[in-house]
Amino acid sequence: MNPHVRPVALEHASRLVNHGPTVLVTSAHGGRRNVMAAAWSMPVEFTPPRIAVVIDKHTFTRELVVASGAFGICIPGAALADLSYAVGSESGRVTDKFDRHGIVATPGRALGVPLIESGCIAWLECRLIREPHAEDAYDTCFAEVVAAAADERIFANGHWSFRDDNTALHTIHHLGAGKFARADAVVQAQRLKA
Amino acid sequence: MNPHVRPVALEHASRLVNHGPTVLVTSAHGGRRNVMAAAWSMPVEFTPPRIAVVIDKHTFTRELVVASGAFGICIPGAALADLSYAVGSESGRVTDKFDRHGIVATPGRALGVPLIESGCIAWLECRLIREPHAEDAYDTCFAEVVAAAADERIFANGHWSFRDDNTALHTIHHLGAGKFARADAVVQAQRLKA
Repeated sequence: MNPHVRPVALEHASRLVNHGPTVLVTSAHGGRRNVMAAAWSMPVEFTPPRIAVVIDKHTFTRELVVASGAFGICIPGAALADLSYAVGSESGRVTDKFDRHGIVATPGRALGVPLIESGCIAWLECRLIREPHAEDAYDTCFAEVVAAAADERIFANGHWSFRDDNTALHTIHHLGAGKFARADAVVQAQRLKA
Repeated sequence: MNPHVRPVALEHASRLVNHGPTVLVTSAHGGRRNVMAAAWSMPVEFTPPRIAVVIDKHTFTRELVVASGAFGICIPGAALADLSYAVGSESGRVTDKFDRHGIVATPGRALGVPLIESGCIAWLECRLIREPHAEDAYDTCFAEVVAAAADERIFANGHWSFRDDNTALHTIHHLGAGKFARADAVVQAQRLKA
């Protein structure tokens, strides 16, 4: 049990994915479960917190998400780059990826979706909002975030804190072919004089 | 004229936004033009290249995009953090933001959308795909990318190249309240043994 996990207020949930990290989408239904990597997600609304994530209609994840009406978003820290790439490159339809890679997940309190603790730094439990046309035409799944949490060593009081002493917890951003950029070198923009 | 601008093959266009950079959305119609910052965008399809971007229905940009059926995506480098924050914090309905901030833009060859050269590192010309329900319910605008280009010092042969000697050209990722993380510290994921 990671003693650093803290709830995140729902009005701050969008900030967890605002900067475009690669995420792990988890799902479960009827005794089956899965995890896939997704580079394509974004918030779409602050309040109520809503997000969109692209889940290809041919994936096992899509099947589980539609059947259960829910999914988890687990945000991997930089230490989890290898695993993120692995679960983004294989299907979980035949072999359970949790078992294959020794991933421990516990059911979220709000929706029971599998939440991966080790190596992840933030978690969202999401209730699918059925939008058959967007799902079909763009593989885009809309959802409402009903619970959020984060590791306080990297996200606290509604803000990310990417520092030199916690780089293993920084978010990763997929560039393609298993190459990730790490969120780093934070700058505060200055007000321009008009 | 930036001598480093090169066309990007459409099958590689999604990679320009795959890692979640904050972008500038440009638009023009009937002699008016605008630019806004958007943290909420993502690819939704490789081929044909399609993206989704959240453009609030109350913005002037939304009005211009719907009227013209097109918009530009200009990706700012780290050197443009202050300007990105500025154009994300003000409306262009009354005052032209290009004039206010001395932003030079030239019409894109494919769709004529304003493209900001100075400080930007990649450009997409996008044709709006009308989806009234998604636009209304989620402020989500879908579009097809019909042309793409990038600064070859940071994106070449279909790949980003974030290095220590080109940090001013690295993408920025909005954390909130004018604070941006820079894409940095690229790691190549290793194949896990199952």
